[in-house]
Amino acid sequence: MQAVAAKWGNDREVPSELAINLATVREQFGLKEAVEVCTTLGIRSLGFLTDQVRAVGLPEAVRIAEDNGVRVTGLARGGIFPAASPEGRAQAISDTKRAVDEAAALGAECLIILAGGLPAGTRDLAFARELVCEGLFAVHQYALLSGIPLALEPLHPMYAADRSCLNTLEQALDVCDLLGDGTGIAFDTYHTWWDPKLEEQIFRAGKRRLLAYHVSDWLVPTRHLLFDRGMMGDGVIDFCRMRSLLSSMGYEGPHEVEIFSSEWWSRPGELVLRTCLERFITHCT
Amino acid sequence: MQAVAAKWGNDREVPSELAINLATVREQFGLKEAVEVCTTLGIRSLGFLTDQVRAVGLPEAVRIAEDNGVRVTGLARGGIFPAASPEGRAQAISDTKRAVDEAAALGAECLIILAGGLPAGTRDLAFARELVCEGLFAVHQYALLSGIPLALEPLHPMYAADRSCLNTLEQALDVCDLLGDGTGIAFDTYHTWWDPKLEEQIFRAGKRRLLAYHVSDWLVPTRHLLFDRGMMGDGVIDFCRMRSLLSSMGYEGPHEVEIFSSEWWSRPGELVLRTCLERFITHCT
Repeated sequence: MQAVAAKWGNDREVPSELAINLATVREQFGLKEAVEVCTTLGIRSLGFLTDQVRAVGLPEAVRIAEDNGVRVTGLARGGIFPAASPEGRAQAISDTKRAVDEAAALGAECLIILAGGLPAGTRDLAFARELVCEGLFAVHQYALLSGIPLALEPLHPMYAADRSCLNTLEQALDVCDLLGDGTGIAFDTYHTWWDPKLEEQIFRAGKRRLLAYHVSDWLVPTRHLLFDRGMMGDGVIDFCRMRSLLSSMGYEGPHEVEIFSSEWWSRPGELVLRTCLERFITHCT
Repeated sequence: MQAVAAKWGNDREVPSELAINLATVREQFGLKEAVEVCTTLGIRSLGFLTDQVRAVGLPEAVRIAEDNGVRVTGLARGGIFPAASPEGRAQAISDTKRAVDEAAALGAECLIILAGGLPAGTRDLAFARELVCEGLFAVHQYALLSGIPLALEPLHPMYAADRSCLNTLEQALDVCDLLGDGTGIAFDTYHTWWDPKLEEQIFRAGKRRLLAYHVSDWLVPTRHLLFDRGMMGDGVIDFCRMRSLLSSMGYEGPHEVEIFSSEWWSRPGELVLRTCLERFITHCT
């Protein structure tokens, strides 16, 4: 592990709470290059993606993290539990257990759980939600024994059909209440900024169950449902309010920039990362 | 008033609960033609739009409704309360009172309230929500004395910034609880189908406060945030579940088809209306 000063440029320090989710530069960089560019900028807290880890193989991914002194804030993703067939459901459970193993090997602080949406061709949302609970019950003990907290990430309601039928913090916490120890939530500003019960539910989660905090902005207009998330400051989310909410409930974990944006993916990766740093300092600290 | 049999084609009757919101064919028809085409098909329950009413003038709109024996299920819209300036807020309140007058003249069963989003250039969602409550308090007595119930329509969270900061049934009902008599909700499947608390909140509303029920479908993928609502059956919403929910709580009001879709707006209006009829019978009865 190299000793790299937490420096960015000559006169500006990287805030110690800042993390980058590698999805932010997933189109520009594979795992190794992404990690190296980030650590060169002084960003050592990184959210990893299973796709990238599997592309290089787990042992190599572990080596990359260790060689660069990376703190793996989380691994995204396990889950996608609802499937039309029992085989599909078993596959999702087994894939999530594999992601638990990967998270453990990487020393990741949590596994991000993406619930999954309606099985193709179906319309029974209540049933899809039951399947998410079933899947979580099937992996929960395994994750607990592996020491990997499951971070349930509610996604914006516009993804209910095709990405995640977990759509509010309240709903995710209701599921955490059922599961118990070793579960919590990933709170993403993009998915939840609109929620009238945001404050209430963040306090309900408490410091112990707030396992991840992701930031990106909501653009007006939003031109595409999937890949038009904004850089902080370009949209309407009040990150000061978010930060003060988190600090008033004692959250001390990473603040992780995660931007799914075809526009930012089309720009040079290092420029994007530098912009994340600048904007984080301006709008989120 | 003409006596027109509730007939559609030779062998199929128009379901008595079916209504059409004229937004569905707003790009094809002005008020007069829309009403005539609908009533010729045997559709006599119609949701009116303030824009269309103002385009022909209120006396003419009243004449059109009366001459065609129309039941005006609702008038959309009042509201859009949050504004950056006090003048803007006063204007929204005065415009909503005007819409109350129009609703009363038309014999509309309710005035649909669209809350409005963030004032331009602002990020304070909590403040925008306060302004919505302020606006509603300012028009509530006026509407009550005019006999026009205010139907608060929560819009999908993806519209929180620019259309409506009222985004869940629960939130809308919390506001109704504050306001009291003469207020209720407009329940639109497109805006709320994803809500984990849908059933709970519809029962909380109760028959008395469920002032409007609008149907359109959620398409997968949804290609545009504003104008890509689906014809019933083309998307993932389970209208049987919705209908059974409504009937189990005793709702006897109209089931109003309201489709904002650039695709359907580009087709001949009568074809669109016939398709609404067919699809409503197949998927929603």
